[in-house]
Amino acid sequence: MSHINLKEISTRAPKELDKKEIKDKTDKILQELDELQNLLFAEAKHSVLVVIQGMDGSGKDGVIRNVLGNMNPQGVTVKSYKAPTPEELSHDFLWRIHQHAPSKGMIQIFNRSHYEDILITRVHKWCDDDTAKKRMIAINDFEQLLQEHNHTHILKFYLHISPEEQEERLRERMKDEAKMWKYNEKDLEEARLWDIYMQVYEDCFNNCNRPPWTIVPADQNWYKEFIIASQLHELLTGLDMKFPGMKK
Amino acid sequence: MSHINLKEISTRAPKELDKKEIKDKTDKILQELDELQNLLFAEAKHSVLVVIQGMDGSGKDGVIRNVLGNMNPQGVTVKSYKAPTPEELSHDFLWRIHQHAPSKGMIQIFNRSHYEDILITRVHKWCDDDTAKKRMIAINDFEQLLQEHNHTHILKFYLHISPEEQEERLRERMKDEAKMWKYNEKDLEEARLWDIYMQVYEDCFNNCNRPPWTIVPADQNWYKEFIIASQLHELLTGLDMKFPGMKK
Repeated sequence: MSHINLKEISTRAPKELDKKEIKDKTDKILQELDELQNLLFAEAKHSVLVVIQGMDGSGKDGVIRNVLGNMNPQGVTVKSYKAPTPEELSHDFLWRIHQHAPSKGMIQIFNRSHYEDILITRVHKWCDDDTAKKRMIAINDFEQLLQEHNHTHILKFYLHISPEEQEERLRERMKDEAKMWKYNEKDLEEARLWDIYMQVYEDCFNNCNRPPWTIVPADQNWYKEFIIASQLHELLTGLDMKFPGMKK
Repeated sequence: MSHINLKEISTRAPKELDKKEIKDKTDKILQELDELQNLLFAEAKHSVLVVIQGMDGSGKDGVIRNVLGNMNPQGVTVKSYKAPTPEELSHDFLWRIHQHAPSKGMIQIFNRSHYEDILITRVHKWCDDDTAKKRMIAINDFEQLLQEHNHTHILKFYLHISPEEQEERLRERMKDEAKMWKYNEKDLEEARLWDIYMQVYEDCFNNCNRPPWTIVPADQNWYKEFIIASQLHELLTGLDMKFPGMKK
């Protein structure tokens, strides 16, 4: 098992890459993704779950809009997980998650996810380490259920930004009317817990790694979008899908 | 691990028992159950899942009506699982089950359950042995999730009748207008698969036994109802529940 240490992973694209070139590549991938998703939907054999996690300001919404929002919305659904409701809290933590697992042929995107139950909850000590460990086991079992029993392919992305980049983005939110609504005074408080967040994220990556996480350098949007589009493209082309014949 | 062999277990009450005496005991238990369920609901800390399985004619509906239907319906819900719909089939087999897991304070009854996915499906070879084994693992993981992460207490009852008793009851259904609607020509076909059913049931009891199954001798309704009411009573009295104070 490879041990992930976030400090050793750059939050920026490799210097030798050309932004323009990568953007062109991404555009081409996005065009193909649209067709691949159509095939996935038509064949209705596999399903895809894309989990997106990252600190505030890491660009989760942007990825969903620019990469995943490019496909036919009939076959792609997004579920954003916020703080659990009283009804959700009266069930096990995976209850609200399982309901939105993708059906065959669908791509389901989770903007935040069941992982919050071992991330923010741990940082704020709403859940102790022993409970967190048990939750990790339950998460692994749950992801295995989806993979083994519904041909669900899971992609897990962590949008990796630097604390400096985050600060800049959060400040921007406060100034820009179109972004201000995303801002919450708590965001800055959360930012102060950066190091603890990194610790619990690492623990999560190292314990819930079937399938493994992709740590996406996310300080630059063009590179982040390229990585995510590429991975989804690679997954879908690897499925050996065929259009089914005429309806019987 | 104790190995369950259904042929060695009687389908009838022990001979020394007095029917009238047992019925009086059951009535007393049912009265107390009503109060215990009220306390469970008020405390909203634990939840209870009652799984009822059994061959056609084993009296699942009767138990639900006479034992479990005695409590306040606000805190007791019944979900009957039939053949899966196309939407349900487009998800993993536990998707439709997890949705109806009990929230804190509730008693949830499953009339048939996720176990059908390793019972009828196996008998008819809709699922091979390898898939069945994987499903058993998934079932154990799922039940562990409910138990560990939502204080859910699971009672699993198999209503054990003899093939002779079944035949008599199925014939009755065909004659009685009030029961005829339950009858389906397929029921008799299924009955011919008795021995195979017993094999897959035994395999299920021996592999999915956390918590263990209760094999309920079910040829006589009065005894079956006594056993199920007693077990639920024992579970609830063991929870050390308290009414919470006034709302804060």
